Amino acid sequence: MRSFKMSELRRDPIGGRWVIVNTDHPSRPEDFEHETHSWRGGICPFCYGNEALTPSEIDSIRDPNTSPNTSGWQVRIVPNKFPALQIEGDLDRRGVGIYDMSNGIGAHEILIETPYHNKDISDLTNQEIENIISMLCRRALDLAKDKRFKYIMVFKNYGPAAGASLEHPHTQTIALPMIPKNVMEEIRGAQNYFEYRERCIFCDIIRQEMQEKERIILENKYFLSFCPFVSRFPFEIWIIPKKHSIYFCHMPAEEIPPLASILKDTISRVRSVFTSSPAYNFIIHTSPVNGDGGFEGYHWHIELMPKLTRVAGFEWGSGFYVVSTPPELAAQYLKEQK
Amino acid sequence: MRSFKMSELRRDPIGGRWVIVNTDHPSRPEDFEHETHSWRGGICPFCYGNEALTPSEIDSIRDPNTSPNTSGWQVRIVPNKFPALQIEGDLDRRGVGIYDMSNGIGAHEILIETPYHNKDISDLTNQEIENIISMLCRRALDLAKDKRFKYIMVFKNYGPAAGASLEHPHTQTIALPMIPKNVMEEIRGAQNYFEYRERCIFCDIIRQEMQEKERIILENKYFLSFCPFVSRFPFEIWIIPKKHSIYFCHMPAEEIPPLASILKDTISRVRSVFTSSPAYNFIIHTSPVNGDGGFEGYHWHIELMPKLTRVAGFEWGSGFYVVSTPPELAAQYLKEQK
Repeated sequence: MRSFKMSELRRDPIGGRWVIVNTDHPSRPEDFEHETHSWRGGICPFCYGNEALTPSEIDSIRDPNTSPNTSGWQVRIVPNKFPALQIEGDLDRRGVGIYDMSNGIGAHEILIETPYHNKDISDLTNQEIENIISMLCRRALDLAKDKRFKYIMVFKNYGPAAGASLEHPHTQTIALPMIPKNVMEEIRGAQNYFEYRERCIFCDIIRQEMQEKERIILENKYFLSFCPFVSRFPFEIWIIPKKHSIYFCHMPAEEIPPLASILKDTISRVRSVFTSSPAYNFIIHTSPVNGDGGFEGYHWHIELMPKLTRVAGFEWGSGFYVVSTPPELAAQYLKEQK
Repeated sequence: MRSFKMSELRRDPIGGRWVIVNTDHPSRPEDFEHETHSWRGGICPFCYGNEALTPSEIDSIRDPNTSPNTSGWQVRIVPNKFPALQIEGDLDRRGVGIYDMSNGIGAHEILIETPYHNKDISDLTNQEIENIISMLCRRALDLAKDKRFKYIMVFKNYGPAAGASLEHPHTQTIALPMIPKNVMEEIRGAQNYFEYRERCIFCDIIRQEMQEKERIILENKYFLSFCPFVSRFPFEIWIIPKKHSIYFCHMPAEEIPPLASILKDTISRVRSVFTSSPAYNFIIHTSPVNGDGGFEGYHWHIELMPKLTRVAGFEWGSGFYVVSTPPELAAQYLKEQK
């Protein structure tokens, strides 16, 4: 068997999908514990006083008299201790017979959202959420300076069912050396529409949703929160800027407070619709960086998916999703919450 | 709010993905129980003596002196009591502003694999598995006669973590009025390769895998079982006919026993690598029916995915998968089992 020094990127020659293969510390069969609903025990590396348990911090918003890697921060950025991709090296793409591969170059950072171990976004103040958003933008702008990176993906896993392995609230940023397949598909779809109609498809969706109203949850001066007509999951939600804008990280300062407020209110409503706060993922969909792909017909937005069902064979095989709650009904439940 | 009489198909105007929306019996928030690891209690509708609890049987292999909808069967085909799509009606595609939709026409059948409630495929005899394969082919051939259907998808969910809601082993067939996105992508990828090289990409994959050997688990005269170079999940397995063949359901009779045997042996090995038998999905990837899409460069195969990890925000957003066990290592574990 070949041996590898770091993670590997491999490209499916049929559909063009990339996967990251952990060749460095591979999991053995006994490492796959049964799915659990509880958290790993032990000391939380994201709590005050445990700053030395994470790799050295990259950035933070903190009290003026405190030093990096000590307490006193409000949000804190650290490299992931177990990164999916490594920051060092040059991208080395090559063929292996009919297959394509590359070394696993990229960045994998954690934003620790709050010093409080048990607070999720809906428990934070608007100001605290504004700090999170500002910091995510700042990191994306910084990572985009590295010309090896083509896409900056920001996402959050909340709860074990959504794939989170630590309870302390955090958001992740992964910088990738190629534009991921799902992003590329979304961009191509938007591009086709733009060439045909000379309009942004997301702007047209916003217009239709605001006219029909039945899928809208919340609205403020700059943002809209709604359940998309073609939800893949029950209670799926999009949060989108009303004004056309291709990059999340170029958001004007005046839009940060309304985004913080609609995000907090939307997540609070998800939590109150269900008896116990469901696990969820959210993903920031934005334009690629450094070259190809950044184009005027794209429109950044956040997709939020409460984890209420399991994906089964039919969905994996077909890409067809079966949604048991129509988005019109989901929006009604969410709208009626206080 | 609009009211609907049956399930609806909706098409995402950006990426072209279809979803099935249950507008008839929508789930309310309280219907989403927490993910469970146990089975629904009560009487099993798939056991001997309970034949009246399922819709009337469509086909079966049964003892000569027994009547339909009574005991005495070895495999039994029934309509799904809670179908994702309904068989009656004509396809009615229409636009709703910028969105596309259709009524939910299709077929959704269950193959009950064995009278034994607790036996999975690896516990059955070769003859019993041959009956399952023959019956799946027979049903696919029959459903393909309905010109409304463009794709016949066969899949199995085993275990609650893989999305199964009943314990009694069963396989499902869904006939769809359009070619699903994932299938279309796979076909387009194979087609591009075929146009460029004038060879089937799957035949080339088989050739390379048989040469490199390090990802092969099992091989017999007609089939190969291996961990694909670009696995999306740890311990993902493909079972593929060595001879080029575009339709699963056109399999010659002589290939059914070797398929039964490699399927049984492969699943047995998955069960013995892990201390407790993991949940899994398998999906039969085959060519579309009735018109567009059936083309000579496609090659049917089975994709089997043990459910060992959870899909999180990064995978949902990017389509990039992080695989913690390299397929070379997974194949080695599986090969070494007896």
